[in-house]
Amino acid sequence: MRIIDQRALPEAEITRDLESAESVADAIRTLQVRGAPLIGIAAAMGLVAAMRDDRALARATFLGRLNQRATLLGAARPTAVNLRWALERMLTTAAATAGEGSNLWERLHVEATSIWEEDRAMCRRIGEYGLSILSDGANVLTHCNTGALATGGIGTALAPIYLAHEQGRRLHVYIDETRPLLQGSRLTAWELMHAGIACTLITDATAASLMRQAKVDTVLVGADRICANGDFANKIGTYGLAVLARHHGVPFYCAAPWSTVDASLAEGDLIPIEQRAPSEVTAMAGRPIAPDGAAALNPAFDVTPSRYVTAFITDRGIVQPPFRS
Amino acid sequence: MRIIDQRALPEAEITRDLESAESVADAIRTLQVRGAPLIGIAAAMGLVAAMRDDRALARATFLGRLNQRATLLGAARPTAVNLRWALERMLTTAAATAGEGSNLWERLHVEATSIWEEDRAMCRRIGEYGLSILSDGANVLTHCNTGALATGGIGTALAPIYLAHEQGRRLHVYIDETRPLLQGSRLTAWELMHAGIACTLITDATAASLMRQAKVDTVLVGADRICANGDFANKIGTYGLAVLARHHGVPFYCAAPWSTVDASLAEGDLIPIEQRAPSEVTAMAGRPIAPDGAAALNPAFDVTPSRYVTAFITDRGIVQPPFRS
Repeated sequence: MRIIDQRALPEAEITRDLESAESVADAIRTLQVRGAPLIGIAAAMGLVAAMRDDRALARATFLGRLNQRATLLGAARPTAVNLRWALERMLTTAAATAGEGSNLWERLHVEATSIWEEDRAMCRRIGEYGLSILSDGANVLTHCNTGALATGGIGTALAPIYLAHEQGRRLHVYIDETRPLLQGSRLTAWELMHAGIACTLITDATAASLMRQAKVDTVLVGADRICANGDFANKIGTYGLAVLARHHGVPFYCAAPWSTVDASLAEGDLIPIEQRAPSEVTAMAGRPIAPDGAAALNPAFDVTPSRYVTAFITDRGIVQPPFRS
Repeated sequence: MRIIDQRALPEAEITRDLESAESVADAIRTLQVRGAPLIGIAAAMGLVAAMRDDRALARATFLGRLNQRATLLGAARPTAVNLRWALERMLTTAAATAGEGSNLWERLHVEATSIWEEDRAMCRRIGEYGLSILSDGANVLTHCNTGALATGGIGTALAPIYLAHEQGRRLHVYIDETRPLLQGSRLTAWELMHAGIACTLITDATAASLMRQAKVDTVLVGADRICANGDFANKIGTYGLAVLARHHGVPFYCAAPWSTVDASLAEGDLIPIEQRAPSEVTAMAGRPIAPDGAAALNPAFDVTPSRYVTAFITDRGIVQPPFRS
């Protein structure tokens, strides 16, 4: 299984070949592979790669190993539900398939490929449904990276932007740099510039001022997990944008595949929020940017209550909560 | 005139001796010296240092040179009014003093020293007036740097925090890192840690989520210019905090010396906003963090309308607009 190490972008395009569940889990944990839909695909493909040498095993032993590895992969990151969704789908498929290890492995290979292909089609559908919210000349503000680098296709929140651009609509995208890991500067700017879409980087704290100056027509973000009531977790900073958008009368859309819905959670405050290392805030590219010993909080996500969301753009259409999986 | 180059903090404490108006203007422009009150003091002291070799000049020639250098210094940064306030005070003092160059220079030296001493006393008064808003156990959120490194004394927005700590009140300060130049991480964290005040760094986009969790009791910021109606300019990101504070019912205070009031401007949208180089956003410590050629907006300040401000903490007390200089 071959990945692009997203930590090195845009300075370098480094590819890695991963063969074990440990190395895939590590790639997910360290954000070499990131983006809620993509980590689901990576986990499914990673499971197939890791089980390749176990094809000769008898059914029960094969399933035992499969379960162990799925548990390992599922623990790599806690917030995005797509990871667990993809792994559960793989486990359910294996359980429902007759035969020994080699049969199961072949079927898992097909299933992982389906997850990827469905993701690609899902992105396109999100893009098509989302087209209606982007008029010619619109200024769109987005946060983090929700494009081709976060999915198996053209992205979630970026998908409508790609399709609108394809159709000749003139858009301009303000990209929040998205501290601490700068997915906006490093990844979204890279994607949009490659696609020839006009874009401008801003620091995260600049968005409010642009809204006050009426320079933002629409805010469009992704999601890592959406609860039954429509509360959702996304990259830290999303909630602040939602409040600011509401305050300034700017429509605020969340675009995500249906697999992001976790209807088992009634509301947002039940979503586990990943706390990442303080060093992501206090150092940058290995160089300290704060005094030695400074304390820092580094939640990777925040929760945006559903009432701030104008609508959810999904592969099943533009929808409103409540959601059932 | 000796300064600490604040760009190198907290990694290194580099001092520089500046003798010419050009070198002082350059130090202000490149943020070696920063903070609205401190750049006023630096400009006044810089004028004295630069005129030292002109003491032998006749009155008219001396005043001509003084005016030229004040114009140069005044153009170094456009938004903070304290810079122009201090320079105008120096020019008015020179004009009102009898005699030739040597007399004028001696008087200017006294005046610059007074500006510094008054600033120190002003900080203390802001701190004393501000004490009433900080109860024991409070969690305070602040943005940028408004402490000893931004003034000639104990700071503006940090002054009440220093005095409350001196009195034994237990405070905890959340420090916005303050992108792009990280004055929060580099300077405020350094100051508060040296003072033994509990503090935690956060990325700028984390503040909203902390407010939603009721972890912030008070927001306390400085100002670079306050208009007659109470609208004020401060570090980019301040306006967003003001909206978020209002939305969550968190008191939002602006602490600044009276010299920050520019009553000649009726309202905030008349304040000139300094646009700094995009490279401050797209690179960090000389290393690119965005693709080559990426466009970026980099306004150094934003404007917060007066209606979001609970009260202004000044050296003349806790006050409400309208203001007259």
